[in-house]
Amino acid sequence: MARRELGPAGLAVVQAVEPWTRSGRVRVACSGGPDSLALAAAVAHLAGRDASLALRAEALTVDHGLQAGSARVADDVARRLDDLGLPTRVAAVTVDRADPAGLEAAARTARYAALSTGLVDGDVVLLGHTLDDQAETVLLGLARGSGTRSLAGMAPGVALASGALLVRPLLGLRRATTADACAEWGLPAWHDPQNLECRFARVRVRERVMPVLEAELGPGVAEALARTAELARADADELDAVAARVVGSRDGTPQELPVPSLSGLPEAIGGRVLRRWLIGLGVPEPSFGHVRAVRALVTDWHGQAGVDLPGGIRIVRERGVLRQGPRDDG
Amino acid sequence: MARRELGPAGLAVVQAVEPWTRSGRVRVACSGGPDSLALAAAVAHLAGRDASLALRAEALTVDHGLQAGSARVADDVARRLDDLGLPTRVAAVTVDRADPAGLEAAARTARYAALSTGLVDGDVVLLGHTLDDQAETVLLGLARGSGTRSLAGMAPGVALASGALLVRPLLGLRRATTADACAEWGLPAWHDPQNLECRFARVRVRERVMPVLEAELGPGVAEALARTAELARADADELDAVAARVVGSRDGTPQELPVPSLSGLPEAIGGRVLRRWLIGLGVPEPSFGHVRAVRALVTDWHGQAGVDLPGGIRIVRERGVLRQGPRDDG
Repeated sequence: MARRELGPAGLAVVQAVEPWTRSGRVRVACSGGPDSLALAAAVAHLAGRDASLALRAEALTVDHGLQAGSARVADDVARRLDDLGLPTRVAAVTVDRADPAGLEAAARTARYAALSTGLVDGDVVLLGHTLDDQAETVLLGLARGSGTRSLAGMAPGVALASGALLVRPLLGLRRATTADACAEWGLPAWHDPQNLECRFARVRVRERVMPVLEAELGPGVAEALARTAELARADADELDAVAARVVGSRDGTPQELPVPSLSGLPEAIGGRVLRRWLIGLGVPEPSFGHVRAVRALVTDWHGQAGVDLPGGIRIVRERGVLRQGPRDDG
Repeated sequence: MARRELGPAGLAVVQAVEPWTRSGRVRVACSGGPDSLALAAAVAHLAGRDASLALRAEALTVDHGLQAGSARVADDVARRLDDLGLPTRVAAVTVDRADPAGLEAAARTARYAALSTGLVDGDVVLLGHTLDDQAETVLLGLARGSGTRSLAGMAPGVALASGALLVRPLLGLRRATTADACAEWGLPAWHDPQNLECRFARVRVRERVMPVLEAELGPGVAEALARTAELARADADELDAVAARVVGSRDGTPQELPVPSLSGLPEAIGGRVLRRWLIGLGVPEPSFGHVRAVRALVTDWHGQAGVDLPGGIRIVRERGVLRQGPRDDG
């Protein structure tokens, strides 16, 4: 690897990855698909030039155990990464098939837990998501219609509780670039057959929606969606921060919110304040409709009954405050 | 009209329109297409029950003069609206075919000018845009990738300089509802052949993109897009208001912005402050890329040259401030 000349696609991947390889353990998540294989190859390339990185770099392949032969696929990927000079481990995880959030979400939860295990402050986990993945994520968020946060896509970086960072260095690169990089490096990528299974909404977005958008609205649509994610993330972060200052207190979630303190809030803040408050009270995942119904107790008050929410929580307006009321099971 | 029984679709249109018919002159913009024809019919229905409204209601049909026979179409529409009991005027407008913003935008500018003419405080112009139009607008904004404001779609209401209001009462109704309402009222709608011309991006969105989105992501996509518009509008309004407080001053646009006052701003606010400032200095329509380049003078300063912008304006950083510099024509 190390002595091999870099092609233009390989160079682009290496340049995107390099800033994240300067300290701590560098753990590459690699499924064997072209995106994460290019990511791993770039780290291997950098490790070939930098003896310190060579001691800190590793790869991890997750065997979700969801497809027949998945263990063999994971072992093949691990062997290929070992050949690149990256010490590689296979983590066999157990996916909760009964997860109410669905199989994809359950697999993701198990995968991220495995990727985050054993890390300390300063370590980095690298994920191979590309600009195309980001564009697909924005479209899926758009289809939910739950606002700016749902258009923010995947975060470029997430700090884990351990102090380690989870980073997506390829979010600015097209998927075609990672495929080209693999070709330049002579690395055959594994193509997950699930990536063609149209029962997954993400696969339908990739295979059927994006090509139509690019054909009808122009070839820059994926970049426009990724830019939307970046802008929406900044906006949602700022508005969430304002809402946190309004509802936050040192003593945790207030049990009551005075109506006058809410009715003066702009619409963008009022909804977020209520959403945070409901989560603090224990409502799991309040929907747009839930928040709107509670907000109507402030902005459209005509003596209506309380609002029943998931988690067995009921919000009522009484004597000028919003607070939890007894659940109406009548 | 007045005595005719309302069907369910007609009732939905009437209920959406009714709150906007209570004062002032009520001017319905009607192209003769199903959306605005249902709108006009709803106003006529309400005028049939309310003699005060009958005196205040009118319709206006704009002849853009862009298609052969457009005057005849406009006259036909006007006659049909007169038959409903709405006094109707045809406004022949001149569209600036050389408008750099394009023919669609030029036609819109001419149309809105005609619709706004002669109104006073308290008057209302009703426009027939539906939830489907809103969903299409959001997708067009998404394809531009210029952030939360471009996802905000069409405003439900806009205050004109005269104090009159321009209102879109049907933004919560599907296009199918207006077509059903016309059918219930026995009103044949005019179908503009331009609505099938795929050289218009909006037509491609309507005819080719939305059906794929609905097929692949579920039948609730149009509603999700319209909800996105509502939430994005509230968010963009709030963030713009914060930015206006930062950059605004009684003396108009400041000639200089101190770098320290900018570098502490959150990302969502910093970009908006600069965008407002550039517009105040006379940059027409600064793009995402323009704002980003100017912002880099603050957040990624390494002694770079000034940023050349449309309108012949160049922004430089000198001695800790951003200000206009001499244009580098070298």
